[in-house]
Amino acid sequence: MSGDGPRLSEEGLIARHFAPLAGPGADGLRDDAASLSPTPGHDLVVTVDAVVAGVHYFPDDPPASVAAKALGVNLSDLAAKGAAPRGFLLTLALAPDWTEDWLAAFARGLGEAAALHGCPLLGGDTVRAAGPTLISVTAFGEVPAGGIVRRGTARAGDLICVSGTIGDAAIGLRLRLESKTAWARALRPEDRAHLADRYLHPRPRLALASAIRRFATAAMDVSDGLAGDLAKMLPGLMGRIETAAVPLSAAACAAIRLEPALMEPALTGGDDYEILCTVAPDDLDAFRAQAAAAGVPVTSIGTVAAGEGAPVFRGPDGAERRFPRGSFSHF
Amino acid sequence: MSGDGPRLSEEGLIARHFAPLAGPGADGLRDDAASLSPTPGHDLVVTVDAVVAGVHYFPDDPPASVAAKALGVNLSDLAAKGAAPRGFLLTLALAPDWTEDWLAAFARGLGEAAALHGCPLLGGDTVRAAGPTLISVTAFGEVPAGGIVRRGTARAGDLICVSGTIGDAAIGLRLRLESKTAWARALRPEDRAHLADRYLHPRPRLALASAIRRFATAAMDVSDGLAGDLAKMLPGLMGRIETAAVPLSAAACAAIRLEPALMEPALTGGDDYEILCTVAPDDLDAFRAQAAAAGVPVTSIGTVAAGEGAPVFRGPDGAERRFPRGSFSHF
Repeated sequence: MSGDGPRLSEEGLIARHFAPLAGPGADGLRDDAASLSPTPGHDLVVTVDAVVAGVHYFPDDPPASVAAKALGVNLSDLAAKGAAPRGFLLTLALAPDWTEDWLAAFARGLGEAAALHGCPLLGGDTVRAAGPTLISVTAFGEVPAGGIVRRGTARAGDLICVSGTIGDAAIGLRLRLESKTAWARALRPEDRAHLADRYLHPRPRLALASAIRRFATAAMDVSDGLAGDLAKMLPGLMGRIETAAVPLSAAACAAIRLEPALMEPALTGGDDYEILCTVAPDDLDAFRAQAAAAGVPVTSIGTVAAGEGAPVFRGPDGAERRFPRGSFSHF
Repeated sequence: MSGDGPRLSEEGLIARHFAPLAGPGADGLRDDAASLSPTPGHDLVVTVDAVVAGVHYFPDDPPASVAAKALGVNLSDLAAKGAAPRGFLLTLALAPDWTEDWLAAFARGLGEAAALHGCPLLGGDTVRAAGPTLISVTAFGEVPAGGIVRRGTARAGDLICVSGTIGDAAIGLRLRLESKTAWARALRPEDRAHLADRYLHPRPRLALASAIRRFATAAMDVSDGLAGDLAKMLPGLMGRIETAAVPLSAAACAAIRLEPALMEPALTGGDDYEILCTVAPDDLDAFRAQAAAAGVPVTSIGTVAAGEGAPVFRGPDGAERRFPRGSFSHF
């Protein structure tokens, strides 16, 4: 059972690295299933998302960051549904060249993210992958019975809101892929760091769950880009967005000033993990106030209009633009 | 959106092949999460297991069989915990050479298995895999509050029981790998078919869940081989098995008569997906009666003894045997 000797068995790896993360009902990960006692009067909200090395993250990303992203993208879905996290299950398919050091750092990062968000590990499965490492997380949350906030339930006339800032992660990804370009080199180091961090570390907006439940007529998280996700959220309707109202970070603004073409990936690129939701106009002030009290800025960026089609982004000059290619797809 | 044209988007594939499988709370798979209303007074039982092409199944297995196995191995875990199924989530990582025909047949098989076991699809994620196809299923079940049956709670003096027959799948796998050997060719076609089918199609013992909850002091399913799983179930204790009592199918008996060395894989090979459990001696008759009423034969094969170590298998000649290499591991 020594780390210097031959590889541990699956049970040995679990006992060493993952059992310390186990929450109530997980029986120390010594069983093949976990027990979860629902809060009376509540529904479970369940979601699963996988991240794959070379598709959703860079194989040389820090293992703790990979772990935080794998959990975070799922907690982001819970937040968008108005749910509070209860626990998660992990499927870990390890590439042939995995090392125990990588696994140990991954498990530590996973434990820190789980503790930060109050979402303990309940169980999992570890398998060999002949290809790249794949991490699939199933997250469980709770809402008061009947309280899940759906994606496709917006009404014409609702206002469209987003949390935080949009486009940081997409520009952060460009920065990583195009670090030698003029705009990348001209950016201040602190702006580069901010954008890179936003790509690497999604911040699930769990603090917003209660306000979403109270005010949102529909909600989802922005994982595949604002333009494409808006289209998904509004089947049979059309989003009309004021491009100048889309909240940008100072770092994203600086990058777009240096390279105006970055506005497009900011609006269509993935990995924001902000909340996209709709509220009745009369509720906007109360929604913003409750969100602010929870520490999350929300911004109204447009309206839901009757009619079908890709969302329309209207620029400061009045010119209208659509992004027909839709969103970035990880598939 | 035509199957003859370019590949569908992820959303198009889901709408075409998986939405017809969606259960209540899944919102037609048009949302990023599902809602599950727990039965009052019940706990959720949650489990996840992945199957990988080339590791857990043959890449050329029928897609419907792969689907039934991916769901079945998880339902087998629910059964062993005494739980009734409520639904499942699917992570599908598709190898680069996937075809829509394969996916369509997979989804049909998945739907049939889900309907058979009353366990609807609640959601999922589809990603590209640069390696072999991987299918991870998270299954949800329910037990009356506090009713989950654990794996490590057997007591010295308990009787060890198994459902159905042991070793069919392991011999079926050998048959597939060694189809040209003398024993394989000498087997009757119906015996070959039985053994091959048992490898390909796990039969989760959900009908036994209620009897397990009522009588078992500990339970798990036999997925990695009887000998190794017994060792896992009895930490700090020792299983003493009468080898002649281990229930074998007529087909497995015939194979072992032709090739006595097959007794070892029968006891140590994986993929039985039968229930392994312990009961107090006074409860054996009632347990067997309730199991029989549920249509599942159960057999007492030995006892839990004090002392630690690999389980001991005593042959008809009184000779004792251990299998120190433990169980087959998919990892």
